[in-house]
Amino acid sequence: MKKQSRRSFLATASYSALLPLAAANSLDTKPKGMKNIFIHHVYFWMKNPGNAADVEKLVEGLRHLSKVKTIKTLHIGKPAGTPREVVDNSYGVSWMVTFKNKADQDSYQVDPIHLKFIEDCSHLWSKVIVYDSIDV
Amino acid sequence: MKKQSRRSFLATASYSALLPLAAANSLDTKPKGMKNIFIHHVYFWMKNPGNAADVEKLVEGLRHLSKVKTIKTLHIGKPAGTPREVVDNSYGVSWMVTFKNKADQDSYQVDPIHLKFIEDCSHLWSKVIVYDSIDV
Repeated sequence: MKKQSRRSFLATASYSALLPLAAANSLDTKPKGMKNIFIHHVYFWMKNPGNAADVEKLVEGLRHLSKVKTIKTLHIGKPAGTPREVVDNSYGVSWMVTFKNKADQDSYQVDPIHLKFIEDCSHLWSKVIVYDSIDV
Repeated sequence: MKKQSRRSFLATASYSALLPLAAANSLDTKPKGMKNIFIHHVYFWMKNPGNAADVEKLVEGLRHLSKVKTIKTLHIGKPAGTPREVVDNSYGVSWMVTFKNKADQDSYQVDPIHLKFIEDCSHLWSKVIVYDSIDV
């Protein structure tokens, strides 16, 4: 196996839930669907809104949290500021992670890295809303 | 270029925002981060909660909506039912899409396919909350 092929194989193996449709999408208009995943999306409202240092601390905590082994993909976000009535821009930080299944999410909840994150960072937020979604 | 290599190249091109880190993740513990993306996450609360036919109509509408060209990845979800105090399981359907940037999301908002979706399906929901996130 040549080096480039091996790298491509590893990437495919890591994103096996995404890639089969992705390849098709390059060629036609089939939906670019993520299948067989568990999406855990957390929105944090800061105790001190507008305090950049607090946001940075929370983001650093999330970067450390991202080391939990069962996480497949993740995104650390902030409000895009899109000015529409139905858009909630009031949160401070968004944490979107995907897992293979519910069991992996359950394992993440009690992972020592996650418990340490809560211990270190929970003083930074005043409210958390979590939406957990599985395939329809 | 051999057939396998070409397929891998197409997949990589389609998921260019995800794959550079994905390849690394297979080899070490670096965060599996999605970068340079715009996440548009919509939660729909149904007008008739528990009406399976209405949910199916909305899901069908979203499957059609997924044809909008600027969408990079998408997931159509339902509550996972995780029983924790901070988890909101009251919505009916989750619609998570990613775009390359804000301009592509703005374009999606006025895309005829999106306008038709609203026209055809808005009678099915009583409330919508949208969270738009960009990289911190």
